[in-house]
This record gives sequence, C-alpha cells and structure tokens, in this order.
Amino acid sequence: MIDRRKLIGAGVLGVAGLGTTACGGPAATEGGPSAPAVSRKRKRLNMVTTWPKSLPGLGMAAERVAEQITALTDGLVEVRVFAAGELVPAFEAFDAVADGTADLYHGAEYYWKAKSEGFPFFTAVPMGMTAQEIMGWIDFGGGQELWDELSAQFGVKSFQAANTGHQMGGWFKTEINSLDDMNGLKMRIPGQGGDVLRALGGSAVALSGGEIYQALQTGQIDATEWIGPWNDFYLGFHREAPFYYGPGFHEPGASLAVGVNLGVWESLTASEQAAIRTACASVNHLSLGEFTYQNARHLDILVSEHGTQLRSFPDDVVTRMGEAAFDVRSSAGNSGALETRIYESFETALKSMRGWARISDGAYYPAREVANRGL
Amino acid sequence: MIDRRKLIGAGVLGVAGLGTTACGGPAATEGGPSAPAVSRKRKRLNMVTTWPKSLPGLGMAAERVAEQITALTDGLVEVRVFAAGELVPAFEAFDAVADGTADLYHGAEYYWKAKSEGFPFFTAVPMGMTAQEIMGWIDFGGGQELWDELSAQFGVKSFQAANTGHQMGGWFKTEINSLDDMNGLKMRIPGQGGDVLRALGGSAVALSGGEIYQALQTGQIDATEWIGPWNDFYLGFHREAPFYYGPGFHEPGASLAVGVNLGVWESLTASEQAAIRTACASVNHLSLGEFTYQNARHLDILVSEHGTQLRSFPDDVVTRMGEAAFDVRSSAGNSGALETRIYESFETALKSMRGWARISDGAYYPAREVANRGL
Repeated sequence: MIDRRKLIGAGVLGVAGLGTTACGGPAATEGGPSAPAVSRKRKRLNMVTTWPKSLPGLGMAAERVAEQITALTDGLVEVRVFAAGELVPAFEAFDAVADGTADLYHGAEYYWKAKSEGFPFFTAVPMGMTAQEIMGWIDFGGGQELWDELSAQFGVKSFQAANTGHQMGGWFKTEINSLDDMNGLKMRIPGQGGDVLRALGGSAVALSGGEIYQALQTGQIDATEWIGPWNDFYLGFHREAPFYYGPGFHEPGASLAVGVNLGVWESLTASEQAAIRTACASVNHLSLGEFTYQNARHLDILVSEHGTQLRSFPDDVVTRMGEAAFDVRSSAGNSGALETRIYESFETALKSMRGWARISDGAYYPAREVANRGL
Repeated sequence: MIDRRKLIGAGVLGVAGLGTTACGGPAATEGGPSAPAVSRKRKRLNMVTTWPKSLPGLGMAAERVAEQITALTDGLVEVRVFAAGELVPAFEAFDAVADGTADLYHGAEYYWKAKSEGFPFFTAVPMGMTAQEIMGWIDFGGGQELWDELSAQFGVKSFQAANTGHQMGGWFKTEINSLDDMNGLKMRIPGQGGDVLRALGGSAVALSGGEIYQALQTGQIDATEWIGPWNDFYLGFHREAPFYYGPGFHEPGASLAVGVNLGVWESLTASEQAAIRTACASVNHLSLGEFTYQNARHLDILVSEHGTQLRSFPDDVVTRMGEAAFDVRSSAGNSGALETRIYESFETALKSMRGWARISDGAYYPAREVANRGL
C-alpha cells in the first residue's frame, strides 16, 4: 500500500506564504473591487480509474476531466491519471480514494454495489433512466443530495463525470430465441443487470473491461455486455461473438462518476472546487455527445465491415426482464434506510419522466423514422 | 447606440503592471515548477440575451454561465447579464455582439436566419437531431468548425450553452384534426419550423418570448409553440389555448448558444477562455437535465391542475410535415457555399445517428413502456 502522507507531501509543489496585501493590496485601492495578486500553491492530485489504459470514451473522459481542471486553474492544479492496475486494480478505486491512497477516481458507482445497494442508482439500473433523465434526477430531483449522503459515509464526494448514453444488450456467441436460452447463460454483466440475468436463470460474472476479451475467447463466458458500438469495437468482442443485441435494458444511460477524497475536497479553495465541479459537468456534456456520434459511426463500421449481426431480444425475454428489473430495484431499495430513500426518490422521478418521454423523445424517434422512410 | 470604447474602458477595473517575478519568482525556485503570484486585471463583460427577465430555464442558463465564469476565474471575470430589451431588443443581440455594443449574447442561433440560412442547423431543424445528437454533431461531427467559420464572418465565436431537449408542438386554441386545419393557421413559430408551417398553408409569425402571450390573447395568433411544459407554464399559454400537441417535430432538441465578440475572445487569457468554454459546456449539461426533469413535473401540473388536454398531430399532418421538413432543410442548404457544407455535414451525421437511435433510445423508450405497463 502506498503511504498516503508521502503522496500528500509530494502533491504540494509550490511555496506559499507571500502576503496578498504586499502584492495586490495597494494597487487595488482605486478603480473598484480589488485585484489581488494571488500567491497560490501548485497542487498535484492523483486520479485512479476503473478503465483500461487509453480506452476511447471513458478513459478519455477521465483524461479530459484532468486536462480541464489544469486549464481552468491555470496549471495550478495538476491531475495525474492512472489506468486500472497502474496504481490500484479497477475495483479498488473507491477504497483507494476513501482511504487516501489516491485523491480522486473516475469510475462507475455500481462497481461499489457490495458496499451499498444504493450505488447502482447513480450509474444505471435495469429499465431505468436514460442519460438525460438521470442527469435530471441527480442535479434537480434530489439525487445529488442523497448521493452526497451515501458517499460521505465513506469519506468521498462524487459528481457526474461522463455518460455513455444507451448501452447495448451485449454480444452473444449464439442467438437468443426464447427465455429458455437465457437459462444457464454465463455472461459478463455487473450491477443490477447481473441480478436481472440471475433472475432469468443465467450466471452473471463481474469482470473489469480489460479482462473480458480473454474470458470470451476461452469460453469462460458465453456473452458479454460492455458499453456500445464505439467502446466495444476497440475491445474486439465482434471477433468472438457475432450477435449484437439492442436495445439493451440494463443500462439505458450509464452515468460515470468522479469521486474525490472528502478531506482533499475540503482542503481546496472555492475556485479549485468550482474547477473540479465544472470540469466534471462539462465532460459529462462532451461524453454524451461523443458516445452518441461515435456509437453511430462504429455501428455502421461493425455492420458493414465486420459482419456483426444485429438482433433484438424476443418479447418473452423483454417482458421477464421488465418484471425482474422491478423486483431487483425494489429489493435494492429494501436493503437499508438510506437505500430506501434513494430508491423512492429515483422511482418517483422515473415515473414522472416516463410521462414526459411518452409525448416527447419516446414518440419523436419512431415518428421521425416514419417521416423519413426510405431516406 | 452605446459607445463600445466606453464599455471596454469601464470593463477593466483592476490595475495591471505588477511584475510577476517580484511577487512569485524568488519563492518558486525550490520545490519544482514555479508558483507565480499573479497580478491579474479584473474584467467586466456584458452579456445580452434573447430571453425575458427571470425566465426559468433559458434565462437561468444565461445567469448560470455568468456565475460559473466568475466562480472559475475567482471573481476576476465578472459577467453582467441583460434580459431582452434591457440593453438591446431580443432579436438585436447578435448585432450588438458583432458590433461590440455587448461582449457576449445568450440566445438561439436560428433567430439570425436572415443573415444566413446556415444558422438554424446550430439550434434545431424540423425532423432533425435530438439534444444528444446535436451535441454529438457539433462537438465531434465537424459542426463546431463549420459554426466557427460561419460566425467568424460576423466577428463572433459561439458555443453550445443550453439545450431544452424535446420541444412540444405547441398550444392551439382549437384542435387540429386534419391537414385542412393547418391551412390559414396563424402561429408563432420561428426558424425552419416556420417555413414548414408555411408549406402546409399556415402563416408563421416570429415573436420573442415576451410578446407571445398578448398576441395569443388578442387573437393576433391562433397557436404558438415556445419550448416545453416547464417554460410554457410560466408564460401562461394554457390559459388561452387548451390543446397541447406533442411530440413536436420542429425542434427535437434545441441548442442555445453563447456568442462572444471575436475581438473580446482573442483578448482573453487561455484560462479565461477555458472558463468560458467550460462554463458553457457545463451549463449545456445542466440545462438538458433540468428541462427533462422540470418538463416532466410541469406536464403533470398542467394536466392534473390546469385542464391542459394533450393531443398528437394526425398522421396526414405528420407525413406532410416530414416532406416539408426535408424540402426546407434542403432549400436552406442551397442558399450558399458554406450553407451547403453545413447542410451536408448535418445530414450525413443525422443519417448515421438515426441508425443508432433505431436500436438504442428510439427502441428503448417504447419498450420500457411495455415492460412497465400499469406501473
């Protein structure tokens, strides 16, 4: 284990102690509010991630958060990004930040499901919210306050910091023609999606991104979901499993997070905190657009150049997934007092936004296809 | 007209000229990279908007951009926001920034359609892109570069700085039962949506937000679109026109913009530019979530407490709108060399993203309703 105090020591590079009045005070007495000359410490923060090195999309989102924080602070806060395994393994990112081994993580909250069944609601849950819906709930429907309460129990403060948009149902070596074909299926699928698969008789395996391909190749798993056409393409699953199922139901708009060690967060100045918060929101914006554009482009490539065959789950599978999804969410909501409040807040917001979706995007997308038929 | 030089003069409040070495140099020779004590000028920028004062949603988005820029620059860049009519009328915001009367605007690019038929593609076009699709095209599909080229002709540099998500089809005093009912209809609807209405025999009127209610009340118009349940609620259209049509087809995800005077933009430091760019992206993220959440909530209120009656356009109207939309976009794309490149880039990206939508959100929303039937 890395010595936390050593990291903190190394993290502060500059020297403080210059009185602001000596530099900025006298000059600022005329012409309105003061323009202090600020003597600022240069800080270095270490960010661990749950993503393989150089992963397009999510790995890039972590890099962008780091770059934007540096740009916004004029280079005074430097964030160094570590891929999964470089400082700590993917699934230890949360603990590393909680115990101060690292300062921040970029990852998926549902990876911390064993700590609290409340975490998956802040990433994605089966048959749950799309990207813009989870953005609405977290920022405006009370989600962030509940998330803060949950994360603070572990000494962490978290923000939305990327969204993949819709995630595909996964890559399958053989076709799924009925509910029976889900029975005994060994599939890489984390979070509540894994619980839904178990309810359908399958066997859910949790593997980090870098471990999936080999498991698929060696037959350790029969199927895997990961993200969508763009990220999936670069992990090469299409070479091992030709059937690509969509739409997916387990992660309709997965929100990724930056978690900051609470002590580190509280040690930052107001403008440094603003830089982190705003960089995270800005990268959330960028990544949702990027996934939408790049998923479209890579879906074209997969289908036209790599023989990927698109399939949709049969009706009986979708219906059973819907029932199981409701049970799984409800069961997570019964796992503790705070989890109940998270669940109830989420479900109330989801129900209301489903009403809006029915006469907005949910009706627009199909109508656009009718109106553009043949084009 | 306001004297531009006077504004610039008033805009710089602090005093520069303190050598950075005097404050930061000596202290920074140890411990790694330097930690300069920076003497920075305090700048004040004036932002005009196309929104009525205190308008929820879009007016708030402009305020948030301003606040975030100030927070990110530690108060050194102060942005003062003017509602439509306070400094210049809504539809003169672009000219005010282009000629230096103001430093920035927050508004809708399709209001500048008379200057170039290319502008509407950066807000919303009929049967066009949803919020996340236009985010994808602008940031990753070549849209921003074309937008920069277009705006630079007028001395402006623009960014996405809010997105309303799906916009409703509008408020109607009487029901639309067939294509015949569109004939002679006087409706407030700007941009290419207005051109589509004209193709269907209606009469499109351009009015800024603050002018609509009275026009509806006095019978100057028979119908109006504005944004969606949230913003519409506060302008009170439901009191004058009970039939609310959705989905809308003219603005499937309207992107709003901040435009900065190019000379002002180039005079800013790298971190000040980063503050503006990042604040705009961050507010785009916030507003899309906020509109999604608040539209849902206000739709509930309108229907359950104000007798609003939801309607969908009949099939023949939708089909004709689709044909007209294609013609209107194509005609805008034929209006000049740059407009052609904008149009072609937009259509290529739209076609690709339609393919993705068909197996992702466009299929997920309806399936979620089937799976949640009765809940």
